Amino acid sequence: MALKLHGLPMSTCTTRAMVCLHEKAVDFELVPVNLFGGEHKQPSFLAKNPFGKIPVLEDGDVTLFESRAITSYVAEKFKETGTDLIRHNNLKEAALVKVWIEVESQTFNPAISPIILEFFVAPKLGNTPDQAIIDANLEKLGKVLDVYESKLSSTKYLAGDFFSLADLNHFPYTHYFMQSPWASVVNDRPHVKAWWEDISSRPAFKKVAEGMTFG
Amino acid sequence: MALKLHGLPMSTCTTRAMVCLHEKAVDFELVPVNLFGGEHKQPSFLAKNPFGKIPVLEDGDVTLFESRAITSYVAEKFKETGTDLIRHNNLKEAALVKVWIEVESQTFNPAISPIILEFFVAPKLGNTPDQAIIDANLEKLGKVLDVYESKLSSTKYLAGDFFSLADLNHFPYTHYFMQSPWASVVNDRPHVKAWWEDISSRPAFKKVAEGMTFG
Repeated sequence: MALKLHGLPMSTCTTRAMVCLHEKAVDFELVPVNLFGGEHKQPSFLAKNPFGKIPVLEDGDVTLFESRAITSYVAEKFKETGTDLIRHNNLKEAALVKVWIEVESQTFNPAISPIILEFFVAPKLGNTPDQAIIDANLEKLGKVLDVYESKLSSTKYLAGDFFSLADLNHFPYTHYFMQSPWASVVNDRPHVKAWWEDISSRPAFKKVAEGMTFG
Repeated sequence: MALKLHGLPMSTCTTRAMVCLHEKAVDFELVPVNLFGGEHKQPSFLAKNPFGKIPVLEDGDVTLFESRAITSYVAEKFKETGTDLIRHNNLKEAALVKVWIEVESQTFNPAISPIILEFFVAPKLGNTPDQAIIDANLEKLGKVLDVYESKLSSTKYLAGDFFSLADLNHFPYTHYFMQSPWASVVNDRPHVKAWWEDISSRPAFKKVAEGMTFG
């Protein structure tokens, strides 16, 4: 039975899960959630995720939420098929994948996500973007990407010379960011630019990006 | 050879790693880092963690940073010893551990950590705590703990009726929070209170808490 992913093709966190499922060549059905109609706050959805957020993955009797938990679960359960995203046969490489997964989660995401929320999401909700928030986070993001630039000058991908879940988890916010007026924050750093061009040209990324009409 | 953990016994992220190492009964040496002297910004430390933050774990030729990557690595590498923190023999339970690890990382931590930073850390740096930041995050934290209260009324721990890495990762910030003027945010929710009393009375937690003189 195909897995069911509840979410939307424009949602950053849904697309993080989708790219992972495509990389692992796992069959899944995307079940749309009517956010504007408040479906995610209804009891039937809250029974799947008590925080009322997308995405949710249903795999038989296992129900997961939180996109990074979903990508980690998919990468591990289907470790023998598709792209090896967690280097499960190499303790040292697997450790570095874990490290850079957490860098995305704790350092990259807190800087880039407020920019996307202000620039792309706020206007959709009828609000004016707060330029002070954008500016403060552009500065934070630049500092994070300085470290990435240095790292990516010595290895092709974040955790080493292999594409991994650490790179993959960066996909959705970076994709939207490159459509913002501040793409130069990536493009001015040659190794970060080359890394993004490499990973964003992967078939799984391109397939999911097609549906991201949000920006 | 014992593992080396570079950090400080008052540091939230260092203690997250320490509790995990104690739960797994793994021998380690705590190597103090002179933050006030700027040791973490020196080339020798930046070679271990280019972001210049504690903790860093050295296990032979494997060097890791980011506390949640460290706890995940330790829980997995030493899965056969000490407390089973990842339920590696049960796919469904392991999935739920992943989910609630991400809830701590993405939902609980962004609400509780600014409160600790403002109330305990800002005065140490000669700054006045920003009460508006504290108030906004107390409100966020209350909403997160409403969901925890509901979850913990049906299972003893976050991922199920078993203690796991998901619970463990909550340790440092909650420990300090309970010494703040707002401990009632936990204590007013009976299942959250019982959960915290249970996990904070574990020997590994008590041992590490002794050194947390920061508050």
